[in-house]
This record gives sequence, C-alpha cells and structure tokens, in this order.
Amino acid sequence: MGGHNEKIWTDDPRERLRVTAGFRLADVDPGGTPGFAGVGQKNADAALDAGVGELSNLQEMLFANSRSGDPLRVLLVLQAMDTAGKGGIVRHVVGSVDPQGVRLSAFKAPTEEERAHDFLWRVRRRLPEVGLIGVFDRSHYEDVLVGRVRALASPAEIEDRYEKIRQFENELVGQGTTIIKVMLHIGSDDQKERLAERLERPDKHWKYNPGDVDERMRWDAYMDAYQIALERTSTSAAPWFVVPAEKKWYARLVVQHLLIDALQRLDLTWPAATFDVAQEKARLAAT
Amino acid sequence: MGGHNEKIWTDDPRERLRVTAGFRLADVDPGGTPGFAGVGQKNADAALDAGVGELSNLQEMLFANSRSGDPLRVLLVLQAMDTAGKGGIVRHVVGSVDPQGVRLSAFKAPTEEERAHDFLWRVRRRLPEVGLIGVFDRSHYEDVLVGRVRALASPAEIEDRYEKIRQFENELVGQGTTIIKVMLHIGSDDQKERLAERLERPDKHWKYNPGDVDERMRWDAYMDAYQIALERTSTSAAPWFVVPAEKKWYARLVVQHLLIDALQRLDLTWPAATFDVAQEKARLAAT
Repeated sequence: MGGHNEKIWTDDPRERLRVTAGFRLADVDPGGTPGFAGVGQKNADAALDAGVGELSNLQEMLFANSRSGDPLRVLLVLQAMDTAGKGGIVRHVVGSVDPQGVRLSAFKAPTEEERAHDFLWRVRRRLPEVGLIGVFDRSHYEDVLVGRVRALASPAEIEDRYEKIRQFENELVGQGTTIIKVMLHIGSDDQKERLAERLERPDKHWKYNPGDVDERMRWDAYMDAYQIALERTSTSAAPWFVVPAEKKWYARLVVQHLLIDALQRLDLTWPAATFDVAQEKARLAAT
Repeated sequence: MGGHNEKIWTDDPRERLRVTAGFRLADVDPGGTPGFAGVGQKNADAALDAGVGELSNLQEMLFANSRSGDPLRVLLVLQAMDTAGKGGIVRHVVGSVDPQGVRLSAFKAPTEEERAHDFLWRVRRRLPEVGLIGVFDRSHYEDVLVGRVRALASPAEIEDRYEKIRQFENELVGQGTTIIKVMLHIGSDDQKERLAERLERPDKHWKYNPGDVDERMRWDAYMDAYQIALERTSTSAAPWFVVPAEKKWYARLVVQHLLIDALQRLDLTWPAATFDVAQEKARLAAT
C-alpha cells in the first residue's frame, strides 16, 4: 500500500524525506533526487502524468465519503524560501485535481485583525471543510520562521508556539485530518539565479518584490529557524518532509506521491447509497 | 479580436448564443453545436487543449495587473438543471487555470443566517478578489429560479429581484468586473438518462439525491422561470449565453472561448516594474 511504485521509486520518498530524530537541514542536498528510480525530467513528467488519474479518483472518493458523514480531510502545508516553487506545486500538482475538491489558502503577513488574535486563529478559520484537500501556501509556521528571524514575538512566545502547534495539529489529526507538511528546499545560489531571472524578464517583474532581497540577506537565520521548527514539530502524527526542490520536476513528483499515499492510507471505498436504489429507479422511470 | 478562431468557429459563439430581444429558450436545441466548425468531439478536444495555454497566460496577466492596482476581475456565473454539466465545466475548463487565480463558490440552499439577509448579501461576500476569475456554481439566480418555481418568495418580491439583479450586476461591471453568465441547456430526456446512469453506477450513487427527481417533476416550471430570468436580466453590461450542453465537449469549448474572449477584451499587458530594475539587479548581485 502507500502508492509505492517501484518503477518510479527505488525507496519510498515518504521514508527518505521524513524528518526524524537527528535530522539536519544543512545535510540535505537541495539538488538531489532521493529515491527516484528514473533518469531525469522526462521520466518524472511521465510519472507525474500517470499519477493524475489516481490522485483525482482518490480525491473524488474522499469528497464522496464526506457527503455521507465521513469526517476525513487532507491538509497539505507548504513552506519554503521565496522562489522555491510553492506556486508550481499548487499549479502542477494540486491543479490536476478537480478544483471543487480543493481549498487553497495563501497566508500573507497577518492583518491587524489577525494580529489581535492568537496566531492560530486565522489558520483555524481557513482549514478545509471535511472531504476536501486543503493547501496552505505558507501557514502557521511563518509565526516561528519569520517570527523568529525578525523577532516579531518574544523568545518565550516563540518557544511556546512550537508546543501550541503540536497540540493544534494533534487535535486536527484526532478529528480525521491527514496533515502533510512539506518544506521545499533550495540553496541560496539557486534562489539568487531564480530572482535574477525574474529581474531579467519583464513578464516576471510582477512576481519580484524588493523585500525578497531583504529576506534573502537573512538566509542563514532562516535556515536556523527552519532547523528548529522542523525538529520541534515533526511528530508521528504530523511529520515534516524536506523535499529537495532545485529540480522542480522532482519536488512535484514527490508531493504528488505524498498526496496519493496519504489518500490511499485512508482506505476509502465508494459510499453505499443512502436511498433505495430500486425505488429511485422506479420514480425516475415514471417521470 | 475576441479570440475568434476561424478554424474552430464558423460564427463566434459569443454572437450565436447571446440572449437578446425575442429570445425563446424553447427554440434552442440542447443537442446543437452552433458555430462550431469542426466535425465532432475529437476536433473539439484538440481545440480545448489548444486554448489552455492562452487562457492560462491571460489569467496570469489579469492577476499580475491586480498587483499594481488594476481593479479588473472576471465572474463566470453557471446555471443549469441538475446533470447539465456545471461540474464538468469547473473541472475541465476552469480546472486548466492556475488554482491560485480562481475563486470558486458553490451556492447551496441558503443557511438561516443567509436567509435573514437580502438575497444578494451572500453573493456579495463571495465575489472574487480583483485579479481573479470567480466562478459561481449556481448563484443569485437561484432566487428567481427555484425561488419562483417553489414560491419561496411572494410574486412581488420575485419581480423586484430582477431589477435588483440588474442593478447589482451593473454596479459590478462599473467597478471593473466582466460578468459572463452561462446557462447550460440540456433536454429533459437527456437529464433522465444522466440520472439513470448515476443510479446504475455505484461509484456515482453519492452524486444522486432523491430530491433531484422532485425538481425534475417541475421541469416545465423551471424552463418558464429560466425564460423569464433570461429575458429580464440579459443586459448589454452582463449578457446571458444559453449554451447547448447535451454534447459536453461543445459546452466546454464554448465556455473556454467566452473566458478567453472576455480576457482578451481587457487588452492586458504585463505591468511595468514598480521598482528600479537596475538597482535591484545590483542589490541582488551583492548578496
């Protein structure tokens, strides 16, 4: 089970990329393709296409079950430095699923109203409804990442947030939410190239923000903040996966795999009719 | 302009399908393919694929312009009898666009809170943000369709709603919203077949609701309610298009065309940089 396909993977990326005790972000090669059995992008693109039908079918089954009262839902949390490819994941992996089955939430800097509440307040309000795949483009983790790097809260408050996040996610999992937390990992040099490309191309200027360079100057502090957040919040209930993302095709294939795997583990079947099928056939025939 | 492609269309469906004075729903053949130059589904599927890149590019440009203060947005309103294919349009046409550029809203029977407000209250709250393509799966038109057929409001109130809808839509258009209103039109016999298929297939049972047959028994009343709504609310600012939908491939191609056409009419270009490009290149190079 678990969507492990030997033609595509030598090792299940779910095992290879999961953050467990002793994990060190600095040891991850952002250009690597751990577990991938193919020889390059062409194989990966074919594998990605091949997964679309399965992911779509599983998503529809998740949705169908929610109609008959099943409380299951999936939450994909995407975190990354700028340009690492969150948008591409949303577009090319999540975008292959029926939009009616997806709830996408992008978290920007909190509004004044949001800042007046606990940091999890705005997150709770944007959880997917049952039966849906929710996708967080950034998330409550910003409050221990940018929050830490820019000292937007006291050290004691930041410290407290890791525990609050663990409790929050445990609570969600207990209610039937499968949480998949993905950090897309690129190197500093790769980011520099990608930002430079945005500056070279007039059709990409709108994606560039001078603030991106300001954040970039804090690269090492961000890596430290990620290391701590990954250590403190990768639980058995809601593990983190650090996905090398310099090769975009690899990252996309991994995230698709993680979604398919998570849905397969729910062991879904089509729900039984909640009405008398023979009687409905007769009623319909009479119209 | 307007995305009219002579290889695909003999006549622009925007002209052929628009509801103008003297329109009679009863005269529309739900199995027709007005304006389509091809010979069947195969040509249409190829044309649909060919349109994906263009629609995606236009959507991204719409989004990019909103970042620099452009108030433009697009709202696609989908209305139809059950099984006519709204879901397929969302999946196969809207679903080809980056999900980050789309805001999908499905309107069910109003909640108690919604019923306590004016019928447009819940609609206003779910309009797309500027820069997005909003899609209404059902809409404020339910309040003059099921509202009329089931007498959920007094005749005077229903009558008043047409005018309120016209005013509301004019207001939106004045603020920079392009509204595309589509009724997917199938025949009663075709609906019967499609409902029967849902009853035959256990993987489709979850889509079946005994209430669908109850509504089906009011088919003629619904057609009357559509006729009146189309007459009263197809304005030059926000016209209706009645799209024959027994051939799903035709309906999908038409809706894609209407979206591409609407976006092309906005005459978008990539927005100029709001920062000093040379200076940013220097800052980035120094990191």
